[in-house]
Amino acid sequence: MKKQYLLAPGPTPVPPEVLLAMSRSIIHHRSPDFIPIIQQVRSDLKWLFQTSQEVITVAGSGTAGMEASISNFMSPGDKIIAINGGKFGERWLKIAQAFGVLPVEVKVNWGESVDVNIVAGLLAKDPSIRGVYVQASETSTGVAHDVKKLAELTKDRENTILVVDAITALGVTNLPMDAWGIDVLITGSQKALMLPPGLAFIGVSEKAWKLQSMAKCPRFYLDLKRERDNLLKDSNAWTPAVTLWIGLSESLKMMKGEGLEKIFARHSRLAKATREGIKGFGLEVFAKHISSEAVTAVVAPEGFDGEAIYKNLRNQYGITAAGGQDHLKGKVFRLSHMGYSDVFDIITAVSGVEMVLTRMGYKNKPLGSGVAKAQEILIQE
Amino acid sequence: MKKQYLLAPGPTPVPPEVLLAMSRSIIHHRSPDFIPIIQQVRSDLKWLFQTSQEVITVAGSGTAGMEASISNFMSPGDKIIAINGGKFGERWLKIAQAFGVLPVEVKVNWGESVDVNIVAGLLAKDPSIRGVYVQASETSTGVAHDVKKLAELTKDRENTILVVDAITALGVTNLPMDAWGIDVLITGSQKALMLPPGLAFIGVSEKAWKLQSMAKCPRFYLDLKRERDNLLKDSNAWTPAVTLWIGLSESLKMMKGEGLEKIFARHSRLAKATREGIKGFGLEVFAKHISSEAVTAVVAPEGFDGEAIYKNLRNQYGITAAGGQDHLKGKVFRLSHMGYSDVFDIITAVSGVEMVLTRMGYKNKPLGSGVAKAQEILIQE
Repeated sequence: MKKQYLLAPGPTPVPPEVLLAMSRSIIHHRSPDFIPIIQQVRSDLKWLFQTSQEVITVAGSGTAGMEASISNFMSPGDKIIAINGGKFGERWLKIAQAFGVLPVEVKVNWGESVDVNIVAGLLAKDPSIRGVYVQASETSTGVAHDVKKLAELTKDRENTILVVDAITALGVTNLPMDAWGIDVLITGSQKALMLPPGLAFIGVSEKAWKLQSMAKCPRFYLDLKRERDNLLKDSNAWTPAVTLWIGLSESLKMMKGEGLEKIFARHSRLAKATREGIKGFGLEVFAKHISSEAVTAVVAPEGFDGEAIYKNLRNQYGITAAGGQDHLKGKVFRLSHMGYSDVFDIITAVSGVEMVLTRMGYKNKPLGSGVAKAQEILIQE
Repeated sequence: MKKQYLLAPGPTPVPPEVLLAMSRSIIHHRSPDFIPIIQQVRSDLKWLFQTSQEVITVAGSGTAGMEASISNFMSPGDKIIAINGGKFGERWLKIAQAFGVLPVEVKVNWGESVDVNIVAGLLAKDPSIRGVYVQASETSTGVAHDVKKLAELTKDRENTILVVDAITALGVTNLPMDAWGIDVLITGSQKALMLPPGLAFIGVSEKAWKLQSMAKCPRFYLDLKRERDNLLKDSNAWTPAVTLWIGLSESLKMMKGEGLEKIFARHSRLAKATREGIKGFGLEVFAKHISSEAVTAVVAPEGFDGEAIYKNLRNQYGITAAGGQDHLKGKVFRLSHMGYSDVFDIITAVSGVEMVLTRMGYKNKPLGSGVAKAQEILIQE
């Protein structure tokens, strides 16, 4: 027997209550049994997204949500600012290119947060820019971008929307959609929502709905208007992923039970404890400016291979973390503290890293020195 | 307590073994734990599709599979023949229009199967037609189209593919993809595969892959090439719906245990028993030429509302069947005999219909007269 610990930035652990809810006999999505679930989900997603607008749920991965945020609001030839500071920032460029949308790339060094002044300058210079696309949390680097400041730039521009990939940020950190003026807010099921992968969620502002009606990129399966029209009748355009919806109704109940403020405070505390634990063991956090509260990318110490650390965590201690992606492969490893995550998941992560590195010959700090720093944060509740 | 019986044409009942497999702790899709599942699924889907090609699995509803079958193989301005004999036939037209593809509509009266000669005539007249799009089983009418004959028309045309929506036909009836020359074969999880909704599957022939590389419709999330390239490395392009894949690996094992021939024979027997049972009670089957083996649409007898029959089945006996769609609303109701379905599901369906109609005042035939006819078929095993 080896106990397994899932500490990767998605899929994240699913609470047993949710797994069991999903194993109930399947029901029909157009039967009266499913209507209360749709109604609860509609209402709870508005609460989670902090919006009065309908939040659209589609069967698909987070990438489906990202694609929908381009194909629904842009026409071929439209210009968007794509903030690219990691693997998911890059994806904006690829999707835009696939749909003939013209990205103005704001390249950000991996590990850094975007300089909002650069975006402000581009917007001021070019009134034809239709959207600013950004990650609230760039999962590949463990970096956050300043969504609130970006929203201030787009809020008063009638034809420019702010599109936020919050796949590893929503339900982790405060992103009040209506209050800040976020126009399109995207998340996925397998992150802070504590569900298996298979659902993407897209919140859409009134301003964005206006642009949607004029946007000419082709879309059918991911046509958000069609989904909204159905939601308003407590229905779905296409057959929804019924079991995932049922799991969703459970996990949303758990989240409401905890409350948004406590959820954000918990993630913030766990993230801080992870960073302090890592630093306490003499390691460096990859994020230079604003750290993601969902995932911490740790720089592999000089002379140690990040891939080996990641693999040893798994093979020696049953901890599934994540390695580095693309040019960060071998240079960082990533620890998630998102979703169904609490005090002893952080202790597990930090102590696991200590034990693995010590076995690999790391001598900079003794065992327990990082754990102690993490405990100092975690004890302050 | 009221026991519930799900006899709708999707979602269909999920076996408890599959539900329980899906309630196991979640695993990471890029961890070594998931690789054997990908390998098994790749191999078993080839078996199920009767093809040597990779079958692509995407997180999405069946409609995502239908969209992928247009956006991956066509360019704006390309002409396709869209066989439209029901709600799902209509969907070809809508998707084509969304992508700027030009559909040549072959309109078929609801309840009838397509006249293959009409398709042959159109193909002979116009060498520029790039695809023939058809339902193997039109779920809205309970009608099958003759896929084998259609394949004979397209097989030797280098630049024309046959695209078959087999969402309620694959794993029900024999559709040997390679042997017949079907180019794109689509199904969904919540039908004969006995899974919850949330996955679509697309088999692609060598000929279709060639067209894919030239096809210019925009696609990103549903780019099948990207998925295939990843599958060949036992990986996925986007985060897969992990729990549904695990359920899939279980349900495919069950299907392999039964074997294709027995699966097809079982569906054929259950479908025939349903039709004979319905006729034995003095009712009429809606399909005029070839009946679907997955779902039987029953004509509501003169003076009885099909919606009321459907609702009474549910309210009085806990049987979730399906009503008629669009202009068939009130005129038919539909009974599924697909997937996790056996002898006594048919007895339940036929006897439930008898009891509901008798309570509604139907006097044409006595209780049990349909059941007896169904039994006569079911006893011949």
